[in-house]
Amino acid sequence: MKEKVNIVKVGGAILDDNAMLDEMLRRFCSMHGPKILVHGGGRSATRLAAQLGIESRMVNGRRITDKSMLEIVTMVYGGSINKHIVASLQSMGVNAVGLTGADLNVIKSHKRPLKDGIDYGYVGDVDQVDGAMLHHLLSMGITPVMAPLTHDGQGHLLNTNADTIAAETAKSLVDYRDVTLTYCFEKQGVLSNPDDERSVIPLITHADFERLKSDGTISGGMIPKIENALNAIDAGVKEVVIVKAMDLWSDKGTIIK
Amino acid sequence: MKEKVNIVKVGGAILDDNAMLDEMLRRFCSMHGPKILVHGGGRSATRLAAQLGIESRMVNGRRITDKSMLEIVTMVYGGSINKHIVASLQSMGVNAVGLTGADLNVIKSHKRPLKDGIDYGYVGDVDQVDGAMLHHLLSMGITPVMAPLTHDGQGHLLNTNADTIAAETAKSLVDYRDVTLTYCFEKQGVLSNPDDERSVIPLITHADFERLKSDGTISGGMIPKIENALNAIDAGVKEVVIVKAMDLWSDKGTIIK
Repeated sequence: MKEKVNIVKVGGAILDDNAMLDEMLRRFCSMHGPKILVHGGGRSATRLAAQLGIESRMVNGRRITDKSMLEIVTMVYGGSINKHIVASLQSMGVNAVGLTGADLNVIKSHKRPLKDGIDYGYVGDVDQVDGAMLHHLLSMGITPVMAPLTHDGQGHLLNTNADTIAAETAKSLVDYRDVTLTYCFEKQGVLSNPDDERSVIPLITHADFERLKSDGTISGGMIPKIENALNAIDAGVKEVVIVKAMDLWSDKGTIIK
Repeated sequence: MKEKVNIVKVGGAILDDNAMLDEMLRRFCSMHGPKILVHGGGRSATRLAAQLGIESRMVNGRRITDKSMLEIVTMVYGGSINKHIVASLQSMGVNAVGLTGADLNVIKSHKRPLKDGIDYGYVGDVDQVDGAMLHHLLSMGITPVMAPLTHDGQGHLLNTNADTIAAETAKSLVDYRDVTLTYCFEKQGVLSNPDDERSVIPLITHADFERLKSDGTISGGMIPKIENALNAIDAGVKEVVIVKAMDLWSDKGTIIK
């Protein structure tokens, strides 16, 4: 039987709130066995950019990353957020190592080509995650903490979506591990009624998803999220969990499998 | 016989000049066998601080690091400089991993107590470098790239002198490796005449140092530098080299042993 690994993705407002983040990290530490944390960028890159007089431009929720914005996200994601998390985890007894995709060559990507006429700039689309290396680190008792930055192998860092990094990391490990992928979410899970936090759908399978989509229970931005989760399941990930950060490692949330 | 390791420290103006830095990194890559790069901070932290309206205060060449300055050096040293170097080394075929002292718990330190009434703030004095872990990474074919940041194990990062990190890292590896420690320098080496770049002293031993100090050939800021080098030799480091960055991995420079 393969050993397990828990991959947890955290992003959004929680990264800007040290007390909330520490509480979430404590829950992360309490998860038994090998684990990986993938973090997003939060709002601090936008804040630093504003302080430096650089305008943040977003298209479809994605940041346009020109040279000066790449410099900012490298500092904020790779430096500030990543190192704060690593130092906190160390203080909680977890032997963390912060990684961008360039470190250990762990995630290679390519600069996104023009899409619908939009130039996203220094944004990476993932080509390959080195699951063997991550597996080896986990076997050494090390907890990788992955920043949303990758590299193209030509010396360029690329800003990369953290949800994608989490999913691709999970898929890269299925040959070595039983993989559970958890997305920390602002709500309690996938809700059948968006206005009722108690309406969490506990389990969604492929068949459930088709039904929930056609009857309109799941709509809008939740559709691509669940499609990505089911795509990870098809690639061999054992289960995907969507749960509120503060309920991490509980029996709450939605399981997709 | 123990395997070798070359530890190279680079700092100063070269870190602010991408073309020079890349040339130096190419020379670093051409060094045979296992190696570690330790980098300083350059002037970019001062520049970013100024852009954000934060004043840089230096005492005896050391940066006073308050909370907001710690945030800046974490971004610049741990993010910007470290990740740029790692991505460049990867593009040159060297499997680098960027590390602060918090990553893998590789350097534990404590916050410097008041010294002569001066509060340096969040500055770390090194307690311990995990030589066994670095040795293991080297054995995996990995090249650590160390930023001048350590941690106290309580969740706090600490700004730490890169020369000290290089020396303590070298000492931590003497049980596992034949260690050569190279300091990249602005001049060609230790000069017997500060105005003549051709007056490099090729070799300095303990006995030479006493003589050169008493006849006034070596004075001022060079004295503590050579004392630190001889201290590393006493701790088991095989040789310390002081050389111009662009002459790295040549027969130029000063050897201290």
